[in-house]
Amino acid sequence: MTGTDVTIVEVGPRDGLQSVERTMATPAKLRWIDALAAAGLRHIQVGSFVSPRALPQMADCADVVRHALTIPDLRVSVLVPNLRYAQLAFDAGVHVLTIPVSVSEPHSIANIRKTHDEIIEEVRAIVALRNARYPGTQIEVGLATAFGCTIQGVVPEDDVIRLARRAAECRVDSIHPADTVGFASPTQIRRLFSRLRDEVGEKCGALHLHNTRGQGLANVVAALDVGVSAFDSSHGGLGGCPYAPGATGNIVTEDLVFLLESMGLRTGVDIERLIEARSILAAGLPGEELYGYVAEAGLPKGFVPAMAVA
Amino acid sequence: MTGTDVTIVEVGPRDGLQSVERTMATPAKLRWIDALAAAGLRHIQVGSFVSPRALPQMADCADVVRHALTIPDLRVSVLVPNLRYAQLAFDAGVHVLTIPVSVSEPHSIANIRKTHDEIIEEVRAIVALRNARYPGTQIEVGLATAFGCTIQGVVPEDDVIRLARRAAECRVDSIHPADTVGFASPTQIRRLFSRLRDEVGEKCGALHLHNTRGQGLANVVAALDVGVSAFDSSHGGLGGCPYAPGATGNIVTEDLVFLLESMGLRTGVDIERLIEARSILAAGLPGEELYGYVAEAGLPKGFVPAMAVA
Repeated sequence: MTGTDVTIVEVGPRDGLQSVERTMATPAKLRWIDALAAAGLRHIQVGSFVSPRALPQMADCADVVRHALTIPDLRVSVLVPNLRYAQLAFDAGVHVLTIPVSVSEPHSIANIRKTHDEIIEEVRAIVALRNARYPGTQIEVGLATAFGCTIQGVVPEDDVIRLARRAAECRVDSIHPADTVGFASPTQIRRLFSRLRDEVGEKCGALHLHNTRGQGLANVVAALDVGVSAFDSSHGGLGGCPYAPGATGNIVTEDLVFLLESMGLRTGVDIERLIEARSILAAGLPGEELYGYVAEAGLPKGFVPAMAVA
Repeated sequence: MTGTDVTIVEVGPRDGLQSVERTMATPAKLRWIDALAAAGLRHIQVGSFVSPRALPQMADCADVVRHALTIPDLRVSVLVPNLRYAQLAFDAGVHVLTIPVSVSEPHSIANIRKTHDEIIEEVRAIVALRNARYPGTQIEVGLATAFGCTIQGVVPEDDVIRLARRAAECRVDSIHPADTVGFASPTQIRRLFSRLRDEVGEKCGALHLHNTRGQGLANVVAALDVGVSAFDSSHGGLGGCPYAPGATGNIVTEDLVFLLESMGLRTGVDIERLIEARSILAAGLPGEELYGYVAEAGLPKGFVPAMAVA
């Protein structure tokens, strides 16, 4: 295995599973994560430490982390909404901990019941705890609703920059904007990302996209142009929202890998094994609809992935 | 109505309808075309003049053209495979006539039973007839399978350039590459289009994309970067191929309009009316699956189309 040009962060076991009504049983989750890692994914967000009442799908997060940490060369990340749950994540030994900081304050309050000041205070406390006791753990902030919000509507770019600056002042390791509800356009991606890079530099290199309006991969192309080198995506496009008919979840990992490899960018992922792993995902969530074009249509005749050329 | 930045050529009544098994009745076609024009589409490919035995869906092409020509400010185009059918198109009074010239010779033979030499001879004869008797009619060549072919596999770019040069020598008005089977990547789009522009200049400004592997809009973003200013697309993404399960047809007009308008590019199309027109399409083809994300998810809260800003 040689190097990769673009990092794919698989978030299906977190963003995907928290967005479907069914709960995947723990053994099925472990089999799925094993299959994702075996396909070459080297960074998987395996769950959230959150209230099991709010998200029963994530109640087994500690068990899932314990298993994922036994997989060689896998970066294991989780999402946490506050200091209390961050403590559980540190104890579990995750490599990366992601904190959602929503640029739309109404969304932040609806999502994690915190104002901007309150969540920034949590971020500061989590970084202090890390510095004191868990120096090897990376902390990243996901700037949710950075491109628009279903509650607030338009989200001004100046608000994104202001909040990114506050997150950077907390000395987190990375900051990435998220198109939480699939509002972003390629023009917006290029403009906002360039501003963010000017503001917080190399800490900003990743992007979290949803495909709600079918613009996910178009936004990837625009993001590559302005130096984004890591993308969150979800195997099988898991995560159709039960409250938005027809809305799909994150961009589909299989289609993202195909896009990047067909552009000559090495992802380290074996697309055929990734497509085969859909049956393991499907077995763990019987009846749940999976998304993705390449898995349905097949690879082009004569297709050579960038990995094989390199 | 002010100017537009990007032209959308609606090809649903041709590429879409020829790819579904059901035949839409003529009155339903006319209602659909009326609704598309009323939504602001100013260029519609309304059918093909071809053998009614081969494509019974297109048997009423002359009637459809006759009606479409009564719609104010509408450019009416049709596809024709040879001189004989071109004569029917000229007689019908279309504004634009498109000839498919497949870069993959095995595909050309399978599709229209002509070698490269034979189809170029037809193009030359059609241009000669136009020059002699129908000087107002535009002739365009669609370079089918320019990005790959399900029969031949990889299609060398040099073959595309060679055939584009031969088409240009015939003095057609425009030449556009087509990703007939959804193999193209953004990298390929940028590279090939730049070479084509160097070779045939301004005659090359349009692109025909399919969304078979979900890369359609990603390819649009790449194409805009290299100066493409016109795209074929299909209302409702009509055209799922019965021989390729899960494969969709052309890129979806609704999603394309949303992409472009959200990028600040004026299309002249009223996206809400275009989405409403799906019910007219659906009524004309009961039971046929329609595609598209924006129609399902709705427009973003606070969305302002470029048209309204201009």
